[in-house]
This record gives sequence, structure tokens and C-alpha cells, in this order.
Amino acid sequence: MIYFDNAATTMKKPPEVVQAVVEALQSFGGVGRGVHGASLSAGMAVYEAREAVARLFGAPSAARVAFCSNATEALNVAIAGLVRPGERAVTTAASHNSVLRPLYRARAQGADVDILPVAPDASINYDALEALLERPTRLLVATHASNVTGDVYDIERMTHLAHAHGALLLVDAAQTAGVVPLDMGTMGLDLVAFTGHKSLFGPQGTGGLCVGEGVEVPRYKVGGSGIKSYDEEHPSTMPERLEAGTLNGHGIAGLAAGIAYLERVGLDAVATQTHALVERFEAGARQIEGVRILGGQADSGRCGIVALNVGDVDSAVVSAALNADFGICTRAGAHCAPLMHQALGTMDQGAVRFSFSHLNTMDEVEEGLHALSQVAAAVLKDEARAGV
Amino acid sequence: MIYFDNAATTMKKPPEVVQAVVEALQSFGGVGRGVHGASLSAGMAVYEAREAVARLFGAPSAARVAFCSNATEALNVAIAGLVRPGERAVTTAASHNSVLRPLYRARAQGADVDILPVAPDASINYDALEALLERPTRLLVATHASNVTGDVYDIERMTHLAHAHGALLLVDAAQTAGVVPLDMGTMGLDLVAFTGHKSLFGPQGTGGLCVGEGVEVPRYKVGGSGIKSYDEEHPSTMPERLEAGTLNGHGIAGLAAGIAYLERVGLDAVATQTHALVERFEAGARQIEGVRILGGQADSGRCGIVALNVGDVDSAVVSAALNADFGICTRAGAHCAPLMHQALGTMDQGAVRFSFSHLNTMDEVEEGLHALSQVAAAVLKDEARAGV
Repeated sequence: MIYFDNAATTMKKPPEVVQAVVEALQSFGGVGRGVHGASLSAGMAVYEAREAVARLFGAPSAARVAFCSNATEALNVAIAGLVRPGERAVTTAASHNSVLRPLYRARAQGADVDILPVAPDASINYDALEALLERPTRLLVATHASNVTGDVYDIERMTHLAHAHGALLLVDAAQTAGVVPLDMGTMGLDLVAFTGHKSLFGPQGTGGLCVGEGVEVPRYKVGGSGIKSYDEEHPSTMPERLEAGTLNGHGIAGLAAGIAYLERVGLDAVATQTHALVERFEAGARQIEGVRILGGQADSGRCGIVALNVGDVDSAVVSAALNADFGICTRAGAHCAPLMHQALGTMDQGAVRFSFSHLNTMDEVEEGLHALSQVAAAVLKDEARAGV
Repeated sequence: MIYFDNAATTMKKPPEVVQAVVEALQSFGGVGRGVHGASLSAGMAVYEAREAVARLFGAPSAARVAFCSNATEALNVAIAGLVRPGERAVTTAASHNSVLRPLYRARAQGADVDILPVAPDASINYDALEALLERPTRLLVATHASNVTGDVYDIERMTHLAHAHGALLLVDAAQTAGVVPLDMGTMGLDLVAFTGHKSLFGPQGTGGLCVGEGVEVPRYKVGGSGIKSYDEEHPSTMPERLEAGTLNGHGIAGLAAGIAYLERVGLDAVATQTHALVERFEAGARQIEGVRILGGQADSGRCGIVALNVGDVDSAVVSAALNADFGICTRAGAHCAPLMHQALGTMDQGAVRFSFSHLNTMDEVEEGLHALSQVAAAVLKDEARAGV
């Protein structure tokens, strides 16, 4: 089996990630829930994970990193907290449902939400985005890279636009964390939502929200905090403010190991290697008859994703054939990004998404191209026959 | 080291739990996020975990089990969803901050919240509870067992009271799941919030909300759902309704293994063994000069907890000495249950909580008693000296 569905989750984890989770499962007490060794070591591990995340994203400090169960939760926390009735938010059609649905809900509750369309080649018109920001806006939610096409958008430019018009910038880094650099400090980002189980190679159930200095996100979940038990209000200090109940210490230990792995290999090396796989795959796929690559025209390159279709064939048919006949795992369908499919004209067809991690190999890419050429030929023949 | 802080989290997990997490970390794709083997096997594992949870709590079906990151999230989902402005909710002072703080927030937003005091022996006056339910009430939040004293409350009686007055019953089973039986069907419970990482022996980052047939909890987090991507609204069907983004498949696989372990050993055997440890410890502790056991007078027995104090000594001093001198892990302080400490008269002193899992041994209990007798004598002597 060759796994090319890393944009959904990285299946293959570095051995040290598994090891860290095992050690945590055999030794952790509750984080911040006691003064004995088991609890303190868990607390220390979580603190070190916060530091690792802060380092990775250039967050102001470990305390400004709140852990969540995934990027979706982080986006819900930020959007529900900052886009109140009467407030205005802007995003682009490149956004995933994890951005769109919280915004639709905010709109239903009285917020004003505008969504910039993207072009059929998945690119963004930044002038049009600026025009949307003319009206007073609280939050611009910027998808760092499309989870359909892999196109990376110009976050620095969006940050400048947001700040020039008095808006905060929230980055959805679900597809880019660990592969495309982000630095809150130098880039001036206000909020970064990330997930742990994709290109950070951590376990599922991890992710979080990095909150810039001076940005106060209202509480979302409230409950036990391990501190200030006698206050009726959940603590206001970060990171406890945005966390409640026992943290996923076991998963977070694995996330820290994933980030440590990336730092050991080198973030540049990881990006370069992933990019080489993507480039080779895309170049090869373009040579295959009937294959149409989606997007790929954005100004800032792409993350580890290449999405394509074969003729007019349903993406699910192609993906199923790749899996059944060649053991190649891809994902078909709508990828929870409805507006992007509208722009690409692929609402019915969906897209076959190949997504690579730096743990894939060039040999696997070549096998994937071979399989794709065979499948493309077969499904096009079937289509032609059905058309007769 | 002897670990008696299982009410915070069970540190020692059955080996099959660790094994299940390792296998998941080495093989899972995203749950509900593809049709290839890695995604399907993850989806199947999560479905089997839902079935195991439904079996354990007598939930109507696997589909009525929504996974959350912990019991706190489950309680937030239920309380925020059901106790809207203008609605009324009732709970008891035995509740943890994971119940109290969501209720305080609901109150601040315009709900009417009443909290039944508990007696200094931690018992509940059910007639007084019924009186609180005379006014139309949407939700009674019933703590199954105090996380401070371990006293188990009469859930069936509370359910009868709730239903007789038209209220729904939400059980906080954080301390009892796996140790004290709960059956939604035969007991008529409407909602059960549980955590995975305590007596179910699962990993941290797991838990959930079981929702009875006919009870509709509004959505909490919204986002990607793997289904119905083109709808602006997050799906309304359970369990997707109450879940968003990639589930903690790795953790949930471990939770399923934890429940399978309990079923293999036998839930009755687990309860009996845990109870024997608690009984022996409590009987022994009562013989130690200066030790006062908190609670223990409730009508339905206790879960795996014995809380105590030594004279007037700060619980943190006792807990620290047990840890430093004997390697005994307990938890001191307020345990996120402020109103219970108010009732017990231990707001300043806190409580030293010994909490047992069925993986503790009788030898460990004897060692714990020995250590407690030594520490009690020492701290009382120090106290007497300081008093002179």
C-alpha cells in the first residue's frame, strides 16, 4: 500500500512519535492535577510541547499556545469568540468547512460575513480582497493553503491588508504547519490555528490555537482548570483560558516528538523534500492523457497536495481504481471545501487528491504515476465505451 | 512509586490499551475521510468504539454516542446546548467545575440556575432537590459520584424526580464510568457525559456524550464532517452533529481497548475488586489517629475514592510528605469542586484524595496505610510543636 492521503492525516509517523506516546501512556498522570512525579512529568511534557509549538510558529511565548483537539476546534474557538453579532468577518472561497461553517453560524447569529470568490484556477484577487476590507472588519480568516489544490496563498500580503484596515488576521494552517514557514512575530500574524496529526506527524486529537500578544479570545469551553478552583469564572489567563478539563497529554507528548523530529531533520529539508515529490508528481501527471491538474497557479507555490481529475470521470471512480488495482491511497470527493469546488467547476466530479508527506519516497511517486497512467487510460476507455 | 491518583487519570493502563494505540498510530488514516484501507479501518475502529460505549452505558445505539475530547467538553456541549437564556437548570453542590462553570455561564447569559447545597457529610437531601424542580426546569445535571469524597448519588431517584417534573437528566459519569453501573435504557437517563482516561483506562483526549433517543442537543463545534460537504449547516444527524473535524482516532482505539479489557475481566469483578481496595483503605485509615474521612455517608456507596484530612494540617503538606517520603501519589487541594469543600468545611485545608483503580493491589493499599500512619504522626507532631 502506498499512502498519498497525508492531507487528511499522516498515516506514517516517525518512530519517536509512537515511542513518545507509549512512554506517556505508561507514565503520565493528569497535567496540572497533582504534585507527584506522574503529574509533574506530564505537566512538564505539555509545557515543552507548548514551547515547541511556539518556536515553530514564532508565537510570543509558550503561554500563548492553547491546545485543542484539532484545527477545527481552534477555528471554532477563534471565530465564535471574535465574530460576535454585529461584528464583521471576511474570508475567501479557498476556506475549508472548518472556517466556513463557524462563519455561517456567526452570520446566522447576526454577524456580517463576506466571502471572496476565488478564480477558476484557484487564485485570489488581492485587490478584491482589499475592497472587502474597506468596511470595518474584525477578522480576516486566511486559509494558508487550499486543502483541495494545495495552492499556498500570500499570508503576508493578507496580513498587511487586514492590518491596514484594522482587522485581525487568523490563519488556518491545517495544511501548511511544518511544510510552509509561518512566523507570527516577523509576519505579524494575530492568530494561527493548527492541527497536530497532519504534517506535524503528531497523533490525532491534537492541535491548537496560537494567540498573539494583545489579542484576547473569549473563553469557549469552561470547567476544571487545575487552578483557581474557587472562582466562578474559568481562568482568564492564557493558556488555561482556552482549555478546560484534562488535556490530551498522551497525544501532546506525541506532537512534541513530531515537532522535535521536524526540527532534527530540519524544517527547510522537510519542505524541500516534500516539494520535490510534489513537483515530480505534478510534472509526471501533466504528461498523462486526460489528466487535468486543479489549481497550481497561486503566487506562493503549493504545499504537499496535487489534485486532479481524469476527463469527466467521477473522482470517486478514479480514486477507487487507484486503491483497488494498485493499492494507492488517495482521497476523492468534495474535501469539505464546497466553494473551491464551485470555483474549479468540480462540484459534481470532485477531485482526486494526492497528498504527500516528506516520509513518502520518490519511488512511491513513480509508482503513483505509473498507476495513474494505467487507471486514466482504463477509465477513459470505459467512458468512451459508455458514450458509444 | 505507588499511584493513588486514579480519579485524576489512571496512570497504569492495561497493556492492550497501549498496544491498540500503537497499532492505530501505525495504520490509521482519517476517520470517515477516504475509501482506502487506512481510512476505512480507522472508521471501523471508531465505529466499534461507539458500539462499546453504547454497550457500556446502555445507550440506544452507536450513533447516539458522540466522541469529545474529555468529559468537560461533553458537559459543555450538553449544557450550552440545552440551557439557553430563559431556560432553567438545577444541579447539586457535589458538582465539579466542569458542570458548575458551564452553568454559571448559562446563568450569566440569562438562564435560571439553582444549585442544591449538600450536607456537611456530603449527602444530598432528595426532598429538597424535588422542591427545586417544582418550577419548570429543562435540565437536572446529576453528578454520579463526588470527585472529592467518592460518594455515589442515587441517579435513579434523581431521574425519577427530573422526569416527574418534566426535566431532562444529564449524568456526569466522569468518576463512575466503568466502576459503578449506569444503564440509560433501564434507568431512563437522557444524557451521559463520560471521560475515557479514568476508570475506562483509555488514553487522555477521549470521552463523549451519550444522547438518548428523542433528545436533540444543538450543535457545538461545526466544521468538516466528512459528509454533506455542500451544506452550509453542519450535519444534523448523530453522531456527526456533535463532532467536527478529525476525531482522535488513535485515542479512541485505545479507549475501545480499555472497555474491551473491562468487559473481559468483567465489570462486576472490576467493581468488586476496586470496592475491596476502597473498603480496606477506609477501614485502615479510620484507625489512624488524627485522620478524618470526608463524606462516605451517601446512600449509594462510593466509587474508588477516599478523601481525608489529618488534624488541621493543610492537605498539600500531607500529600507532599506522602509523595516525598514514601513515593505515594495522591492529590491535595480543592479538586475543582468548590461547593463540596464549602459543605465539608475544607475550603482552606482542601482534602488529601486517595483514589484507586482496579489495577492497584491490596499490598499497595497496605503500604499506603503504613505511609499515612507515619505521615499523620509526623505532621501532627510538627503541628503540636508549631502550636507551642
